[in-house]
Amino acid sequence: MMKHISLLGSTGSIGTQTLDVCRQHPDMFTVEALVAHRNIDLLEAQIKEFQPKVAGLVDPDAYKLLKARYSGPTQILGGKEALIAGATLPEATMVITAIVGAAGIEPTVEAIKCKKTIGLANKETLVAGGPLITALATEHNVDILPIDSEHSAIFQCLEGQDRENVERLIITASGGPLRTWDAAKIPGATAAECLRHPTWNMGNKITIDSASLFNKGLEVIEAHWLFDFDFDHIGVVVHPQSIVHSMIQMKDGAMLAQLGNPDMREPIQYAMTYPQRVPLHMDHLDFSKLLTLEFMPPRYDDFPALKLAFEVGAAGGFKPAVFNAANETAVYAFLDDTIRFGDIYKTVSAVLEAMGSEDDFTLDNLLAIDQWARHKATEIITKGTR
Amino acid sequence: MMKHISLLGSTGSIGTQTLDVCRQHPDMFTVEALVAHRNIDLLEAQIKEFQPKVAGLVDPDAYKLLKARYSGPTQILGGKEALIAGATLPEATMVITAIVGAAGIEPTVEAIKCKKTIGLANKETLVAGGPLITALATEHNVDILPIDSEHSAIFQCLEGQDRENVERLIITASGGPLRTWDAAKIPGATAAECLRHPTWNMGNKITIDSASLFNKGLEVIEAHWLFDFDFDHIGVVVHPQSIVHSMIQMKDGAMLAQLGNPDMREPIQYAMTYPQRVPLHMDHLDFSKLLTLEFMPPRYDDFPALKLAFEVGAAGGFKPAVFNAANETAVYAFLDDTIRFGDIYKTVSAVLEAMGSEDDFTLDNLLAIDQWARHKATEIITKGTR
Repeated sequence: MMKHISLLGSTGSIGTQTLDVCRQHPDMFTVEALVAHRNIDLLEAQIKEFQPKVAGLVDPDAYKLLKARYSGPTQILGGKEALIAGATLPEATMVITAIVGAAGIEPTVEAIKCKKTIGLANKETLVAGGPLITALATEHNVDILPIDSEHSAIFQCLEGQDRENVERLIITASGGPLRTWDAAKIPGATAAECLRHPTWNMGNKITIDSASLFNKGLEVIEAHWLFDFDFDHIGVVVHPQSIVHSMIQMKDGAMLAQLGNPDMREPIQYAMTYPQRVPLHMDHLDFSKLLTLEFMPPRYDDFPALKLAFEVGAAGGFKPAVFNAANETAVYAFLDDTIRFGDIYKTVSAVLEAMGSEDDFTLDNLLAIDQWARHKATEIITKGTR
Repeated sequence: MMKHISLLGSTGSIGTQTLDVCRQHPDMFTVEALVAHRNIDLLEAQIKEFQPKVAGLVDPDAYKLLKARYSGPTQILGGKEALIAGATLPEATMVITAIVGAAGIEPTVEAIKCKKTIGLANKETLVAGGPLITALATEHNVDILPIDSEHSAIFQCLEGQDRENVERLIITASGGPLRTWDAAKIPGATAAECLRHPTWNMGNKITIDSASLFNKGLEVIEAHWLFDFDFDHIGVVVHPQSIVHSMIQMKDGAMLAQLGNPDMREPIQYAMTYPQRVPLHMDHLDFSKLLTLEFMPPRYDDFPALKLAFEVGAAGGFKPAVFNAANETAVYAFLDDTIRFGDIYKTVSAVLEAMGSEDDFTLDNLLAIDQWARHKATEIITKGTR
């Protein structure tokens, strides 16, 4: 049966790999919508190749440029409306949310309301909006299928297992580019150093999060919402080779793990073909050569974001949203060379400490506190670096 | 719900560990029958502890001794009849076949006919009698649950997975004590050298089979019958640490693996509690310490039994039974210092070559050819060593 895909974030790392999966299986997938941020040239090439019904650029200037130069059957949209149009397109049966950051929340909400199956590559949606999104998905009977490799691995391991038999989720972490660094040097790591990820080729924001273990922290919170395990039953293990993508521990102590080469097309395709599996052309794990896998505990003290994520996740409410928003702001400040690497954590901690009492968990309140956290983070960063 | 266990081979490695699982869960398991070969003292202690309805010793002299000195409520049986009585005991709901070698076949057949769930720790049953046993199990709607760690791992990975999505079974092998030996030295390995298994503490026969990779070959054939995968879709990977107990490769290339410390109580308990899982007291995998796992291809040329097993398995008929019986005879000759290590493979090859045309696959014919193969192997060994 043909699946009709709306892809939000088509020009990013996950987006282009999603399109490679579509390219490998033209009999299974039709691309109905492509929405990107501002990469006009790549989006134009994608429109040409996949002939979607609609395409859009969120950046208004980029949209205007594309609109002016494109002539063809695809409808061109711009601004946040392009994301909402992609998320709600009647022709689409599955929406893949491959945009970065909290911008993924609203389109995901709209897609769920329209009963689209969600291929979730935007972890911020569940981190920030967990209570809202999961309630909405239950209400509309919508599947949220993980695309993050760790969550896909857990999802694959859990498939068909009786939930009663599962004791614990164990998320693997590459440890990032600073894994073996001296504790004293870590806060001074440069953006260039943080961007040299040992195993995964990803976007800049997530690569910095990987260096700080903020990414692993976000994943812990995401796992909580995706699989409904409390934080005492989620663990993290460092595994530098990124071959074991994550594990589940059963009640009797046995572990089930999902393994593969680090290539996002595997979890992407699994979400797209679920519950089926079909061949995928990529370099698969090759046991004809020596393969060595290492596992070790995370350095919680030297990468404090991970411990903070557990605390913030267990506290719940808007804290994870603030954790996420403050981190997003701080990471871009770090990428712009405005703050040091170690200041990312300090900024997030300071914003969390500045939080007032919490309101009801509505979308409006969520978006408001997300904005507040970004402003507060910017304020702290500005003060601190003057 | 209480499970009523009949344990065939109670004093061996699997048997004693099965009783440890029973000991850990007195609320789940009642031991109804205990049958051993000739270890009177241990059986007597087990009778005292577990108070089974019947107990037996296959060795006639040992039986007579026990019969003479035991006084208590347990009924004491002797000879092959003790195995059959244990396998068919009305009170038992599950029969665990933990006896070594082809002696496991007949009791398993009888247990299946009496609709007992089979906990299969005797791999020779399926290797030699695959066509018969699987047909019988289907006819009587009986579950055969694997206890071998590799097959349990595959069984655990397959649980709940759509068979259509599974491409290949990958059985891990420790590689045995001769894994890193120079090819030229392997045929001259002594029994003492072969018995130093790096990861598993098992009986002598299986430890020699592990050194020669005959054991892995038997497991490949067993996997074929347990899971109905053809031999082109079963692979072997050497993994010296024996932590990944086996894997399945899915249609999209993703691998699912089961991991744990090498402790047979885990697969034993899984078979006993299936489909449930309950806590098991053992040293579980500990990710708070550095853990290194290696994988490499088997040395097919230096350990030729494995390749032969694939050929024999694919050829089918009585060839696997002959492969197994000749190996069993040769291994005991090696343990008795009658032949060299390298002669085990040579003997098995020679017996296979001496096979005539095959008859119908009946139990009588199977037992007859099993006997023929043993005599032939003995004949070859006797000639060769004079």
